[in-house]
Amino acid sequence: MKTTIAPARKIRVGVLGATGAVGQTFIRLLADHPWFEVACVAASERSAGKRYRDAAHWLSGEIPESVANLTVTTCEPAAVDAQIVFSALDSDAAQEVEAAFARAGRLVLSNARNYRMDADVPLLIPEVNPDHLGLLPIQRKARGWSGAIVTNSNCSTMVIALALAPLHQAFGVEQLFVTTLQALSGAGYPGVPSLDILGNIIPFIGGGEEEKIESEPLKILGTFANGAVTPADMRVSAQVNRVGVEHGHTACMSVKLASPTTPDAAMKALTSWSGAIAGLGLPSAPAQPVIVTMERDRPQPRRDVNAGNGMSVVVGRVRSDPMLDLRLVAMGHNTIRGAAGASILNAELMFARGLLAQ
Amino acid sequence: MKTTIAPARKIRVGVLGATGAVGQTFIRLLADHPWFEVACVAASERSAGKRYRDAAHWLSGEIPESVANLTVTTCEPAAVDAQIVFSALDSDAAQEVEAAFARAGRLVLSNARNYRMDADVPLLIPEVNPDHLGLLPIQRKARGWSGAIVTNSNCSTMVIALALAPLHQAFGVEQLFVTTLQALSGAGYPGVPSLDILGNIIPFIGGGEEEKIESEPLKILGTFANGAVTPADMRVSAQVNRVGVEHGHTACMSVKLASPTTPDAAMKALTSWSGAIAGLGLPSAPAQPVIVTMERDRPQPRRDVNAGNGMSVVVGRVRSDPMLDLRLVAMGHNTIRGAAGASILNAELMFARGLLAQ
Amino acid sequence: MKTTIAPARKIRVGVLGATGAVGQTFIRLLADHPWFEVACVAASERSAGKRYRDAAHWLSGEIPESVANLTVTTCEPAAVDAQIVFSALDSDAAQEVEAAFARAGRLVLSNARNYRMDADVPLLIPEVNPDHLGLLPIQRKARGWSGAIVTNSNCSTMVIALALAPLHQAFGVEQLFVTTLQALSGAGYPGVPSLDILGNIIPFIGGGEEEKIESEPLKILGTFANGAVTPADMRVSAQVNRVGVEHGHTACMSVKLASPTTPDAAMKALTSWSGAIAGLGLPSAPAQPVIVTMERDRPQPRRDVNAGNGMSVVVGRVRSDPMLDLRLVAMGHNTIRGAAGASILNAELMFARGLLAQ
Amino acid sequence: MKTTIAPARKIRVGVLGATGAVGQTFIRLLADHPWFEVACVAASERSAGKRYRDAAHWLSGEIPESVANLTVTTCEPAAVDAQIVFSALDSDAAQEVEAAFARAGRLVLSNARNYRMDADVPLLIPEVNPDHLGLLPIQRKARGWSGAIVTNSNCSTMVIALALAPLHQAFGVEQLFVTTLQALSGAGYPGVPSLDILGNIIPFIGGGEEEKIESEPLKILGTFANGAVTPADMRVSAQVNRVGVEHGHTACMSVKLASPTTPDAAMKALTSWSGAIAGLGLPSAPAQPVIVTMERDRPQPRRDVNAGNGMSVVVGRVRSDPMLDLRLVAMGHNTIRGAAGASILNAELMFARGLLAQ
Repeated sequence: MKTTIAPARKIRVGVLGATGAVGQTFIRLLADHPWFEVACVAASERSAGKRYRDAAHWLSGEIPESVANLTVTTCEPAAVDAQIVFSALDSDAAQEVEAAFARAGRLVLSNARNYRMDADVPLLIPEVNPDHLGLLPIQRKARGWSGAIVTNSNCSTMVIALALAPLHQAFGVEQLFVTTLQALSGAGYPGVPSLDILGNIIPFIGGGEEEKIESEPLKILGTFANGAVTPADMRVSAQVNRVGVEHGHTACMSVKLASPTTPDAAMKALTSWSGAIAGLGLPSAPAQPVIVTMERDRPQPRRDVNAGNGMSVVVGRVRSDPMLDLRLVAMGHNTIRGAAGASILNAELMFARGLLAQ
Repeated sequence: MKTTIAPARKIRVGVLGATGAVGQTFIRLLADHPWFEVACVAASERSAGKRYRDAAHWLSGEIPESVANLTVTTCEPAAVDAQIVFSALDSDAAQEVEAAFARAGRLVLSNARNYRMDADVPLLIPEVNPDHLGLLPIQRKARGWSGAIVTNSNCSTMVIALALAPLHQAFGVEQLFVTTLQALSGAGYPGVPSLDILGNIIPFIGGGEEEKIESEPLKILGTFANGAVTPADMRVSAQVNRVGVEHGHTACMSVKLASPTTPDAAMKALTSWSGAIAGLGLPSAPAQPVIVTMERDRPQPRRDVNAGNGMSVVVGRVRSDPMLDLRLVAMGHNTIRGAAGASILNAELMFARGLLAQ
Repeated sequence: MKTTIAPARKIRVGVLGATGAVGQTFIRLLADHPWFEVACVAASERSAGKRYRDAAHWLSGEIPESVANLTVTTCEPAAVDAQIVFSALDSDAAQEVEAAFARAGRLVLSNARNYRMDADVPLLIPEVNPDHLGLLPIQRKARGWSGAIVTNSNCSTMVIALALAPLHQAFGVEQLFVTTLQALSGAGYPGVPSLDILGNIIPFIGGGEEEKIESEPLKILGTFANGAVTPADMRVSAQVNRVGVEHGHTACMSVKLASPTTPDAAMKALTSWSGAIAGLGLPSAPAQPVIVTMERDRPQPRRDVNAGNGMSVVVGRVRSDPMLDLRLVAMGHNTIRGAAGASILNAELMFARGLLAQ
Repeated sequence: MKTTIAPARKIRVGVLGATGAVGQTFIRLLADHPWFEVACVAASERSAGKRYRDAAHWLSGEIPESVANLTVTTCEPAAVDAQIVFSALDSDAAQEVEAAFARAGRLVLSNARNYRMDADVPLLIPEVNPDHLGLLPIQRKARGWSGAIVTNSNCSTMVIALALAPLHQAFGVEQLFVTTLQALSGAGYPGVPSLDILGNIIPFIGGGEEEKIESEPLKILGTFANGAVTPADMRVSAQVNRVGVEHGHTACMSVKLASPTTPDAAMKALTSWSGAIAGLGLPSAPAQPVIVTMERDRPQPRRDVNAGNGMSVVVGRVRSDPMLDLRLVAMGHNTIRGAAGASILNAELMFARGLLAQ
C-alpha cells in the first residue's frame, strides 16, 4: 500500500461539542496533528461567544495554546468554517446537528450513536472495514446531502471488534459471550459520582450499552457488496460493569469459531494481523492494531492503556474455552481508540482515499 | 423442620491458622456465637507460645476479649482440645494437618481446597446439599478415621452455586458462562499490593481459581445416592478478575436451562427458594439465602455485601440471554458466606443433625 | 448526673431536606431511636407530594419502613407537624426556612452554617458547652421567636473541637495548626466526581471550609456568662484536603498550650475526659467521646470511623511538637458525629434539660 | 552560565539495587539519556547471574531493550565496571556497599538515607546548593576515598526544599509546619497492602519519615563556607500521611519568614526563581524548577505530577497564614524528582563541573 502524501497545508477541522470530555480529547489529540488543525470549536449556546479557555473546564494537562483563545461558536454550519467536522455531541443533539452539517456539505466524523446502525452510514474501523466507505455515494443520494456522516463505534465495541477482526477473518466468529469492566472516563464528566464507585463496582451502564455491544460488531464485521452491508452471521451476549479505572475498557470474551483452532494459532493470527491500512502512513494508525501479551495477568488498564499511543488493543490470556473455542481478554483506551482517536483515524483514511476536496 | 435445641453449654471449638486473614474472620464471627466458643487458637511454629493478641496482626475492629489472651498452640491434635476444628490453613499445610486431626477423631470444617473434590468428602452447602453428609461414614471407613473432614467451596463458587441452586432445582442448569469481579480480601493479607490494583483491574487470579469455579459447582449440585455423589450434568466456563473492592465477589452469569423459562419465573424461583435448612434454626443461616433486587444497577459489593449479615447472596439484573436462557448478576461476601461463615454454618448443620458427640 | 427518664411516648420529629445525603443520615439514625420518631419529611417543591421512597435516591442500605411511605411535604411550618425539626438544608435555603420554623414555635436543630456564628445562637456540643443553651432566652427575646435555632458545627470542626476540648480544659489551647484529610461523603451526593478523586487528592474544599475551622472552635470552646459567649483566646490555621475515603475526616494537629505538658499527661487528659453529659443517659452519647489509640498508625478512617457508633472521635499519635507543645491526629465520622448525629444529640440534651414541652 | 558540552561518547553508569522499584525508575529514566548509558546492573546475590529481564519483576511499561539482556552482577566494585554508580539500595545494604564503591574510586549518587546527614557528604539539589559539592575534597581526605558519595534527599524533603528555596533566598524561612499526603510508590514494591489503603488513609510512615523532613531541609538550605555546611536557622514540624495516590507527594505548608511578605510577592519570587543551574543545559533539569498554579484546587498529584517531566515541583494556594506569614501547597513526583531523577541530575551537575574523569 502506498504511503499517503501529507496535505500541502494543514486541513482546517472543527470540533462539535468541543467543551465536553470527548471534545477535549479531540482537541488534545489534534494539537500536534500533522495533517489537521483545529480551526473551529463549537458548543452549546451557553458557551458560544466565550474564549475556549473560559468555556471549557479543562480536565487534564494544559489546553493547547492554539485552541485556548479560539472563540466558541454555536453548532451551526454557518458558524463553523471547516470541511471536516468531528462530532463529540450527545445523542440528544447529534441527530439534527450532524444532519445539518452533512446537508451543508461537511464531512461529519461522529462519535454519537444516532446514525451508527443506519443502513447507509459507515460504522468504520479503518483496519477492519475500509470498504464500507462505499456507502457514502448511496448515503448522499438517499439523503440528498452533499456532505456525509461517518461514524465510529461505541467504545467497548471498538475494543471487542478489533480483537475479533483477526479471528473472524481467519476462523469465522459465530458466537461471543463478553463481560466488560469499563473505565470511568467512558461516562464523561462529571459522570460517575465518587460515592457510587469508591471501593465498588456497578454492574450496569445506561444508554443501551449492552445492546450496542450486541449489535455493532455484526455491522462492523459485515461485508459490503452491491451497495449494502450484510451483517456478520454472529451472535453476541454482553454484560457490562463500571469499575474504578480512569481509562481503559476490559472485555472478557468467550468465542465460538466456524473453524475451530488452537490458542496458539489464534495468537498467531492476532499477532500477525496488520489490518487493511498497513503501509498507508495514517498518522494515528498504530504500528500494531492488536498486541498480544504473554504475561499471565495482563492486559491491565492502568499499565497497558497507552499501548500504541492509546490506539492499540492489547489482548491476553488467549486460551481454550471449556464449551466454545477460545477465551481471551481484550483491553483498549476508551476515549482514544474508542472515541476521539477513532474519528480522527477515520478522517485520515478518508483523506488518504482522496475523499476530501482540498 | 424442627428448630434445633441449643447445646446445654457452648461447644469448644478450635481454629487452625488462626492468625491469618481467614482465621481472624472465624474468630470475629464466633465471638458471640450462641453454640460455639473459641477455646483453642493454633497457628505456625512461629506464633506458637505467644498470646493471640501478640501473634496476630489484627486487621479489623477489636480482637474479641475472650480470644485475645489465649495462648497460640501448634496445629497438632494433642495441642488443640476441641472436637470441632475450623481450618483456615493454606493448602500447603492443610493436606497433612487436616488429616491428622480427622484421624485423631476431630471434626474438621475446612476452607482449604485440598479435599474438596475427593469422592468421599462432602463439599457442603447446608441450603443446597445437606444429604452429602451421607459421605461421612464412607469417608471414615475408607480412611480409617474416627473424625472427618467436611469442606466448603471456593469463595466465588459459593456465590455462583447459591445463585444457581434454585434455578437448577426448578429448571435444570446445563451451561454457565461466568465472569467474576473479585474482592481484595479474597487474596488474604498482605495480599494484593496497592500499586497493582490502584485504579486498575487484574484479569487473573492464581491458585486455579477458574478451574475451581468450573468444577466445584458440579459436585455441589450433584446428587447423592448409593454412597456417592454424581456430579450435575453441567458445563461451566469461567473468567476471573481482581478488582479494587474490599469485600464481595460479583459474578456475571449467562445460563442455559434444561427447561427454558422467563426472567420473571426465574426471579420467582430465586425469591421463593428457602433452601433445605429453613426452619432448622441454625444461628448463621440467613433468613433468605438468595435475595433478588429489582434495582437496575444492583447488586453492588460496597452497598449489598452485608445482606443477611454477609450470609445472603444478592442477585440482580435477571434478564434474557440472546443465546442461552438467562443472564443475571450475583454477589456475596467472600470471607463470610464464601469462607468462615460457610464453615460455621456447616458445623451448625452437623450439630443439628446430631453428628457431634456432646 | 441523673439518668434521663425517657418520654412517655416517642416525640414526633421532622426532617427538613430529608431527601439529600444528610437528610438520609438523619432518617437512618432516627430509625430506631428510643425517644424520637420521624413523623414528617420535608423537601423541595419538586419532591413534595411524592412518597419518600419515590422522592429519595436512597444511598445506603434499606429505607426504614416507617419512613418509606411517608408523603414528602414542603418545608413550611404548616406542613410539618412536629415540635422538633432537624434541618439538613443547604445554606441557600436554611436562612429563611429555619427562621420561619423558629418563629412558628419549633425547635430547629440545624446543620447549616447560616446561624452558627450569630451571637445569640448556640453552637452546641453537649459534652463541651451545654451551658451555651443559656443563649436561648436571649435569642427568643431578641428575635421575637417562640421557638429557637440550635446549631451544630462544621463536620471537621466537630472532630477538632472534641479532640481539643479535654486539652483546653486541662491545659489551655492557645494555637492550632491543623491540616485535614476529608472524606467524600462530606461533599454530599452526587458530590465529588470520581474522575476528580480517583488515585488523587484535592487540596481545596469550597464553601469557606478553612474559615469555618478557624472560627467555630473558638466559639465552641468559649465561655458563656452574662448572656453571651466570649470566644476562647485561641488562634487557628487550617489547610483542608479532599481524599478518596467514604466516611471519616482526619485532622493532623499541632497545638500550643498555655500550660505546657507531656504527651503522656495529654493522653491521660484525653482518655479520662467524659464530658459534661456523662451519666445523663442520652441515647446517642458515646460511652467515651474521645478514644485514644496507642497503635502507631491509627486512627484510620476505614478502620476506626464507627467507634462509638460513629459518635466517638479517635485520637492517636499524641507526641511532642518540635516548636509548639503537642502533635496529634484526630478522626471522626463526618456524617454521624459531624452532622446528623450531632443534631440528634443536641436534641436529646434539650429533652433531658426539660427544654421541650411534651 | 555556559551550556555544557555533551561527552564525546556516552558515559558508562551502573545501578545498584537495579531490580527494585527505585532501581527500575533509574533504568527507565536513563534509557534514552544523552550523556549516560546503563552498562551494569547490580543487585542481591539472589538475582546475580540472571538476565535483568528475568531478575526484575518489571512494574511499568516495557524494559528498555538495552538493559533487558544485561547480566545482573553482585553489588561489588569489581563486578561493576562504571565510574558513576547510582545507588537504589535499601539503607540496610547501603552503608557498607556505598562506602566500598567510594573507596574503589567510584562516584556514588545515593538515594539511601545513610550518609545524607554526615558532615562531609553533600545533600545536593543542583538548583539550590551546588556549592555543597565543595565538601568532596574534604570527604575524600577524611575518609581516604578516591571516589565519593553524593546524596539526594528524602522524597518529601525534595518537594518541600524546592518550594522553600526561593522563599528562603528572598525572605528567609524561620519556621515551617508541614503535613504531607504521600503516594504509594514511595513505599516501594510490594509496599503498602491494598487492604490497608483502599478507601483509607494511614497517618504514619515508618523509617523516620517525619524526622527526615524536620532535619534534611536545614542542611540543604544551609551555607557552605570554610569547608563545612552550616544548617539554615529554621525549625520544622512535620506530620506525614500515606494516601491512595500512585505518584506525587503533596505538602501543606505554613511558613514563618524573617522578612514577612505578601502572597503576591511570594508567588513572584517562586515563579521567577530559576535556580543555580539555569542555562547549564543539564538534560534532566526542568525549564522551571518551581511552577506556580493559580487554580484554586491545584496542585493535584494525578493531574500535575508529570510537570517538567516529573522534575518540577508545582506550588499552589499561596495565601496568608493567620498566625505565621504564608501558607501554600507543594507537590512533586516522588520517584522522579524525589529519587532517581534527583540522583541523575546530581550526576549531570558533576559532569558539567568537570568532576568526572572521562
